[in-house]
Amino acid sequence: MNEEIIEKLKQAIDPEKLKTDAATLQERRRDYSAPNELADLQGRGAPNPACVVQPENTRDVVKVVNVCRENKALLVPFGLGSGVCTGIVATPETILLDMSSMNRILSIDKHNLMATFEAGVRGSDAENALAKEGLTTGHYPQSIDLSTVGGWVSTRASGQFSSAYGNIEDVVMGLEVVLPNGEVLETRLTPRAAAGPDLKHIFMGSEGTMGIITAVTFSLRWKAEKQNYTAFYAATMEQGFELQRYIIQSGWMPPVMRQYDTTETKGKFEDCARGEDCIIIMVHEGPAARVDAEIKACQTLAKELNCDQAPVKTVTDWLEVRNHVGGFTEFLKRNITLDTIEIAATWDRIGPIYNNAIASLMEVDGMLSAAAHSSHCYRSGINLYFTFVAQVDDPSKMDATYEDCWRRVMQATIEGGGGIAHHHGIGRVRRDYMSAEIGASGVNLLRSLKKTLDPANILNPEVLIPHE
Amino acid sequence: MNEEIIEKLKQAIDPEKLKTDAATLQERRRDYSAPNELADLQGRGAPNPACVVQPENTRDVVKVVNVCRENKALLVPFGLGSGVCTGIVATPETILLDMSSMNRILSIDKHNLMATFEAGVRGSDAENALAKEGLTTGHYPQSIDLSTVGGWVSTRASGQFSSAYGNIEDVVMGLEVVLPNGEVLETRLTPRAAAGPDLKHIFMGSEGTMGIITAVTFSLRWKAEKQNYTAFYAATMEQGFELQRYIIQSGWMPPVMRQYDTTETKGKFEDCARGEDCIIIMVHEGPAARVDAEIKACQTLAKELNCDQAPVKTVTDWLEVRNHVGGFTEFLKRNITLDTIEIAATWDRIGPIYNNAIASLMEVDGMLSAAAHSSHCYRSGINLYFTFVAQVDDPSKMDATYEDCWRRVMQATIEGGGGIAHHHGIGRVRRDYMSAEIGASGVNLLRSLKKTLDPANILNPEVLIPHE
Repeated sequence: MNEEIIEKLKQAIDPEKLKTDAATLQERRRDYSAPNELADLQGRGAPNPACVVQPENTRDVVKVVNVCRENKALLVPFGLGSGVCTGIVATPETILLDMSSMNRILSIDKHNLMATFEAGVRGSDAENALAKEGLTTGHYPQSIDLSTVGGWVSTRASGQFSSAYGNIEDVVMGLEVVLPNGEVLETRLTPRAAAGPDLKHIFMGSEGTMGIITAVTFSLRWKAEKQNYTAFYAATMEQGFELQRYIIQSGWMPPVMRQYDTTETKGKFEDCARGEDCIIIMVHEGPAARVDAEIKACQTLAKELNCDQAPVKTVTDWLEVRNHVGGFTEFLKRNITLDTIEIAATWDRIGPIYNNAIASLMEVDGMLSAAAHSSHCYRSGINLYFTFVAQVDDPSKMDATYEDCWRRVMQATIEGGGGIAHHHGIGRVRRDYMSAEIGASGVNLLRSLKKTLDPANILNPEVLIPHE
Repeated sequence: MNEEIIEKLKQAIDPEKLKTDAATLQERRRDYSAPNELADLQGRGAPNPACVVQPENTRDVVKVVNVCRENKALLVPFGLGSGVCTGIVATPETILLDMSSMNRILSIDKHNLMATFEAGVRGSDAENALAKEGLTTGHYPQSIDLSTVGGWVSTRASGQFSSAYGNIEDVVMGLEVVLPNGEVLETRLTPRAAAGPDLKHIFMGSEGTMGIITAVTFSLRWKAEKQNYTAFYAATMEQGFELQRYIIQSGWMPPVMRQYDTTETKGKFEDCARGEDCIIIMVHEGPAARVDAEIKACQTLAKELNCDQAPVKTVTDWLEVRNHVGGFTEFLKRNITLDTIEIAATWDRIGPIYNNAIASLMEVDGMLSAAAHSSHCYRSGINLYFTFVAQVDDPSKMDATYEDCWRRVMQATIEGGGGIAHHHGIGRVRRDYMSAEIGASGVNLLRSLKKTLDPANILNPEVLIPHE
């Protein structure tokens, strides 16, 4: 069966673009998630896909989609594999569509502040090309060196500067998408439209289930005239949340506001930690006069809330290490299971969710550390980014402990009325919590969308949508 | 047939909520569009619907949807009828769902800056209730006194202060929607999520074709600390666009920036017009220090571009009359056809579209005035709001001249690479231009969505989606 499809693919596109060598297959079997890493270590990792196709352009993608649809072959798009939600797990029958082969910068337009990239352009390559012109997308996920612009759209990513510049849906102006029926959807490059539902949104966050994103157009910004920093201590998480709430609800928009709980503060800011205090760090950017006004306002609000200023070294330290992505492997080898889980909630709900999730994680046998920080702030609420680290006595319990930790955070979030996913996506790891997030009718609607767009169910079928 | 369905509706909901009196039917036959007005004047206006149902709550809507689906009866949701795209035209078989009967303010939450309204709440009622608490949605369409919050979502409306506060999609946090299958979709009230496609977007701009919006939750703002004004002259539209582009691309965000061409400047600002100059008016809002910094920056940029300051009386004059909606009737009676048409485009395209559309309109026999202003500004482009007024010698040519004017603006926009609709929506008047906007594959995708959600094709079937 595989050989037949590979033969057909070779007839449809340049056979050079189709790889079956072990190294290529091996590298693109799976994403970067902890369960995938653990499975590898335990010798039950994701198998190699049937083949890896490296399309050169949108026409190639259309041809591959057509062959896969006509032959009911599984097709899984892959960017650079930095996903952490087990969104990519190959099977021996999977055709792996390696989008990182489509990595051209198609246009940079300084007059209109727009740029179009093929979906497989690495985030940092996109940013570097823009930086040469004094431009930026304003979107800087931690994975910027490890992820593609298409992956950002596909997973509904957030950047570290989102509190002012918005999330991926706020900076993307247009998409080109190959639909499962082989048609190419190219959304019009207009700054805004009231022309029916915004079709981009069917694909933003669809994690490869609804179509193959082949190009992304951003609405850009000039690099900010001025960047400056502030940092504050808060006696409790609640006090820190109040400070952030006051700032953003007053109409100020520091692009970065991050609040670390006591555990993280002690771990990340050794030099600057003060007793049991939390630390909140802020980056202010924009026209110089606005930055100055914003800093003054934030300092005044902090004073009103009895939050002392902390050294701005905390901010510059963070800026330096902010894109370091820690590996799971060394921990997993020592029978330590760990992960990060990001959620979001309105201001009144975030405190209880934080307390309940941490308390529940701490009940897990072998829990070494359960902590959180916030990193994305909105007028109506904020996110939390939990990290858990638990040592397991028996390696065979690694998966169960991992799932138990996830379940505890999901449960605290759902019971507390929060949203189960802020910016990593759903993949497999959150899939079965989706009905709590969007309700039975929402899940039905997603299933209907999937059936309509992809009736053969060939596109990354195991993620996002719970089984019926 | 009608009697049978009316009977079934009366069994499903309180018969008091079902109206068949002539006055109620007459009032809710159609929206406010020029073609509907003209048809009325010419004695060929939209007929009364079969009945008007005034649901009291979401359960009522579910029951009505179920009866209509099971009996394949046309169901058209209606807010306050202020639409201008011929989105509502009853037939004698239409069940008219009068959502203005669901007009409760469900919650106002000052801590989280959120408020939930039933879909039929009048815009100004929502704003007034919020204003009592010092709050605002930041969304002020010209129709605010004549339209519902559900209508805003359904048509993807824009407010006059959108350049800072965003359009409806930027201020809506959650929706409740009754789907054509009778299920109720309630999106989670989380500030942001990466949990699959944002399902709200299927209904925002769907103009009653995909579901019935029953409640809308906004993310609010506090009323701004300070409001102040600036105004400038520009020798040409191009010069004015450059000023707006410089301001917004520098990172400043005056919520209001409106630029009137020579014709409109002379017409609207008699006292302040200067030769053939355009006038650009701006409202600055926010924390006082930021407003002051923004005004200074705008004045500096204007100086650099040789745009003199104009009297701020232009701004206060506009603020006073901004929600006056002129009627068509007196003009139509005198054989004058007229309308407004809003489009959008990137900065490099807007000038040529303006010139070509105006030139093309001026070629129409009997054209009295063709003019435009801009009112919504983005980093990558801007909108234009055209007004045409043409006197027709023979009343039987009114429709043809009207359609010709529309065709000319649509053609100039499409050929110029712009977007055909900025914020009024599609309705019937733009429906057959949709394939130029979203392509054949986009239209196919819309059709698929419609078939999936509403297989019986009962919900407002003649709008938005071109016939196959």
